[in-house]
Amino acid sequence: MAVKRNKISVIGSGFTGATTALMIAQKELGDVVLVDIPDMEDPTKGKALDMLEASPVQGFDANITGTANYEDTKDSDLVIITAGIARKPGMSRDDLVNTNAKIMKSVTQEIVKYSPETFIVVLTNPVDAMTYTVFKESGFPKERVIGQSGILDTARFRTFVAQELNLSVKDVTGFVLGGHGDDMVPLIRYSYAGGIPLEKLISKDRLDEIVERTRKGGGEIVGLLGNGSAYYAPAASLTVMAEAILKDQRRVLPSIAYLEGEYGYKDIYLGVPTILGGSGLEEIIELDLTDEEKAELDKSADSVKNVLEILK
Amino acid sequence: MAVKRNKISVIGSGFTGATTALMIAQKELGDVVLVDIPDMEDPTKGKALDMLEASPVQGFDANITGTANYEDTKDSDLVIITAGIARKPGMSRDDLVNTNAKIMKSVTQEIVKYSPETFIVVLTNPVDAMTYTVFKESGFPKERVIGQSGILDTARFRTFVAQELNLSVKDVTGFVLGGHGDDMVPLIRYSYAGGIPLEKLISKDRLDEIVERTRKGGGEIVGLLGNGSAYYAPAASLTVMAEAILKDQRRVLPSIAYLEGEYGYKDIYLGVPTILGGSGLEEIIELDLTDEEKAELDKSADSVKNVLEILK
Amino acid sequence: MAVKRNKISVIGSGFTGATTALMIAQKELGDVVLVDIPDMEDPTKGKALDMLEASPVQGFDANITGTANYEDTKDSDLVIITAGIARKPGMSRDDLVNTNAKIMKSVTQEIVKYSPETFIVVLTNPVDAMTYTVFKESGFPKERVIGQSGILDTARFRTFVAQELNLSVKDVTGFVLGGHGDDMVPLIRYSYAGGIPLEKLISKDRLDEIVERTRKGGGEIVGLLGNGSAYYAPAASLTVMAEAILKDQRRVLPSIAYLEGEYGYKDIYLGVPTILGGSGLEEIIELDLTDEEKAELDKSADSVKNVLEILK
Amino acid sequence: MAVKRNKISVIGSGFTGATTALMIAQKELGDVVLVDIPDMEDPTKGKALDMLEASPVQGFDANITGTANYEDTKDSDLVIITAGIARKPGMSRDDLVNTNAKIMKSVTQEIVKYSPETFIVVLTNPVDAMTYTVFKESGFPKERVIGQSGILDTARFRTFVAQELNLSVKDVTGFVLGGHGDDMVPLIRYSYAGGIPLEKLISKDRLDEIVERTRKGGGEIVGLLGNGSAYYAPAASLTVMAEAILKDQRRVLPSIAYLEGEYGYKDIYLGVPTILGGSGLEEIIELDLTDEEKAELDKSADSVKNVLEILK
Repeated sequence: MAVKRNKISVIGSGFTGATTALMIAQKELGDVVLVDIPDMEDPTKGKALDMLEASPVQGFDANITGTANYEDTKDSDLVIITAGIARKPGMSRDDLVNTNAKIMKSVTQEIVKYSPETFIVVLTNPVDAMTYTVFKESGFPKERVIGQSGILDTARFRTFVAQELNLSVKDVTGFVLGGHGDDMVPLIRYSYAGGIPLEKLISKDRLDEIVERTRKGGGEIVGLLGNGSAYYAPAASLTVMAEAILKDQRRVLPSIAYLEGEYGYKDIYLGVPTILGGSGLEEIIELDLTDEEKAELDKSADSVKNVLEILK
Repeated sequence: MAVKRNKISVIGSGFTGATTALMIAQKELGDVVLVDIPDMEDPTKGKALDMLEASPVQGFDANITGTANYEDTKDSDLVIITAGIARKPGMSRDDLVNTNAKIMKSVTQEIVKYSPETFIVVLTNPVDAMTYTVFKESGFPKERVIGQSGILDTARFRTFVAQELNLSVKDVTGFVLGGHGDDMVPLIRYSYAGGIPLEKLISKDRLDEIVERTRKGGGEIVGLLGNGSAYYAPAASLTVMAEAILKDQRRVLPSIAYLEGEYGYKDIYLGVPTILGGSGLEEIIELDLTDEEKAELDKSADSVKNVLEILK
Repeated sequence: MAVKRNKISVIGSGFTGATTALMIAQKELGDVVLVDIPDMEDPTKGKALDMLEASPVQGFDANITGTANYEDTKDSDLVIITAGIARKPGMSRDDLVNTNAKIMKSVTQEIVKYSPETFIVVLTNPVDAMTYTVFKESGFPKERVIGQSGILDTARFRTFVAQELNLSVKDVTGFVLGGHGDDMVPLIRYSYAGGIPLEKLISKDRLDEIVERTRKGGGEIVGLLGNGSAYYAPAASLTVMAEAILKDQRRVLPSIAYLEGEYGYKDIYLGVPTILGGSGLEEIIELDLTDEEKAELDKSADSVKNVLEILK
Repeated sequence: MAVKRNKISVIGSGFTGATTALMIAQKELGDVVLVDIPDMEDPTKGKALDMLEASPVQGFDANITGTANYEDTKDSDLVIITAGIARKPGMSRDDLVNTNAKIMKSVTQEIVKYSPETFIVVLTNPVDAMTYTVFKESGFPKERVIGQSGILDTARFRTFVAQELNLSVKDVTGFVLGGHGDDMVPLIRYSYAGGIPLEKLISKDRLDEIVERTRKGGGEIVGLLGNGSAYYAPAASLTVMAEAILKDQRRVLPSIAYLEGEYGYKDIYLGVPTILGGSGLEEIIELDLTDEEKAELDKSADSVKNVLEILK
């Protein structure tokens, strides 16, 4: 009975996909297959080879390959989807949604064909709707189709708070519900520095500013970069979800999860606190919300539903 | 007497510079300042912020900032230069050399102004001549101005050998002298898998092919990417040099070093085996070479001298 | 200007001291000097050599030496005191306190003689009184003399909670004030799983049991081992304090700190939330306490004062 | 299809067994079951709990349990045997061998009963004969029963060389064949610093002294400790073997392997260069030996055969 390394496929070899591949390899979570469309086959192979050539220096053992052929993803233990287009000037939101949904469907068909038992983690925006699309297209149980947004949103929040208080990022936590970015519902009362509620350490006004900066966090990076969007923090967020599942860690992490009544919603993917472990999304943690929080979450859910409407 | 974190400045916020900043931060070698020209200030700030936002998720404590103002590099413990242009179609080698030398001079003046006691590690190509330029311009002792090429060349070689033998990259070593890439002088007899000379494990013909692929290793990536050159393995290589110095590890690593008679050369920067530790390039290790190796090294040195001629 | 590695001296080469030396070396925080009395010189040298021989395999660069000569601790950046006797059957608490205080004084004189600028972290029990003794004997500013107890107490609490909820230890936090073990004052309202207050996840009765088990956590290990007391978790706790200071991390960690009015106490060392960074104990965080918590903390402070009385 | 963590059982909860358990957990290779005889059940549980309580502080997710019940080892992926007695004053070698062989047999029966598909790594001395005993008793294929000695011997050698040359341990390698300690056959010509053969860097006389010190390396620690033998470096060595197998790394490491004609020996366990990966001991690497080396290896093999004779 031989031990086999995990196999992780990352769909989309743009900056986020490539950085995710590197971070997964650095942690020796398994071998990585970086996948893109045929037009991008060579650059994908180039990035994979360059990363692989970093492995003797960084001391990690993980094969990394680039491909445009989904057959190479066969029997993946986990697949991460970063593929999709970003909204371009003049493009309507509906166009964006429909284009990415089409990409999700075709990618999912390929994934399911070659890895019917795999877990899928989705990053493509709008992530709630895209995760829903992948879920429906795959026919997978909900435990195995999960979206990322909350780890990234809280990472930004934690960074801003750590700067504000001049503290180690290790000791600052954040908590969000709902959609990504603008739609996020921050639960400040569940956010701490060294276990101390932030409300005791930072004025309400300043906290509001930090929340607002977090909401616009993706846009802040887009604005600075001028061309393209954030990829380091998104890649780190995807990696931590992969690690939680592949090492069966039972971590408490915010995920975009399929709801069947939790928090009062049905047949929707929405950001909620979850437990990620060896069975994927093992549990959804339900919290009592204040009326205000519930109202914000409703707004967030409505926003997701509106996008889902476009898809129908 | 307070403990102070190291400060590492990375000049050039392109893919290599940015990836180097990330890897240095991941290892908590110190705080990182990513520097680029005023035109690139915003993207530089954007990359730095995106990386910083990855820190709570990856669990490293390192401040990362982007800037176009060299004042922010003040009192750096180590500076890495990745700035410079790549050769464009139609550009003569002389133009490339002169342009990058001009960049090296202006960058060096700024570094020296704000961090007169720092170490400088150079990556910009043609690296032997560029390191020489930085050395002369800085007026620093030779121990504090070092070029990178051999770690990257051997990383590629090790990768190809590990693939050939299907072995862990941890157990494969390589050894090169001389210039970067095409000009490298591989010492196969000092290259091993698990301590066993490669010549006993791989046929001469196959080894020749692997050496040839290594020589062209940079070009292979350029060809695949289509646009731009390798950055993951170069960044890893720079990071290991920074670590060796900042942690005073006395590692045996190939470096581009200033020679004053070693191997029979004077007033030239060339790739040789060195010891990197807390005083920078602490020693050059001199080896007996075969006539063939010496001839190859002469050719490599000539090639560097030719470039230096352009600069005069 | 050469880079110098940190030097960390660990006083006491018993299980805790030795394990601390190993963990500090594994993290490459610096070179380690393990110190014990002349009678134990050879075993101390033996443990240090054995650890050093693990370094090529584990891949860490740190010199580890054993000695009975304090001259070898010269210019330490940080000193950890684990020396002292454990209470033996028939020994009165006063005898224990007086014996260990005598050891603290003599150890402190040696530390101060050779490293007048160092930080000192104390583990020896009863730790509040022993840290006080070291503080007074050293004449050091309070920022540089710190005791450990809260990291260990919360580590046990976190372990029990993680088991109870079957969650990753990474996502469970705890919070204590006051003395070590029996005297600890748990702040359950500041203890979480994934940011969610434990009171929402575990029944009050079960939480009380977990707190009680934590209080007796040291005794539980003593009872099981039959001979000797815990050393793995104490060593890990000391290492995290050393790392916070030597890497200037500004971490929020519970420490035994010298109080000058904070929480209403003066001229006493007591467990409180603190910020550890490059200047040592940089801040004490003051929290509002409930009457019940304040009463418990008073009891804890009285208990420390009683021990201090013995010493006068 | 849920991901399951690896399960590693460590038989023998003495210093080596316990330190091995800790190092395996620190690397998150899987959950660890520490096993000892019923008389030692409580101390075994105590050590396991103490380690587990270090996990929140060190940030590793691995369950560690102590037990005297082999049922708890059920379905282990890998089992490490450190159990056995050390030679006491007045005890004949034959008595030692027979006692430990008896222990190996009973331990093996239990392992096989509960984990018929597991890998077994043996440390107990005399390790060549004990691995042979486990192999025969288990009825396992030779790929799944492996002994440790060469990693430890070369670790000591590497440490002494790194000290001699004042270099990073990362860049020094060693190479041994044959039995453990006194019987080891060093291949100096395959031992390097930074890839450079040691014979070019250290005088023959000094190398002879280092080899001699390495041969007596276990005794040096025993002599210093006064009571007991080395455990840090042995535990690190076992951990690297476990990692190579459980992560399918195909590492080139010296192992005690079952020979069926390799190097001219049959039906014997002897130290040889091997490849460890997901199928266990995947390959034995055969090298040409000089007459002198072959003579030394014969002596080493004879010594193992003599011990095996005692067992018959």
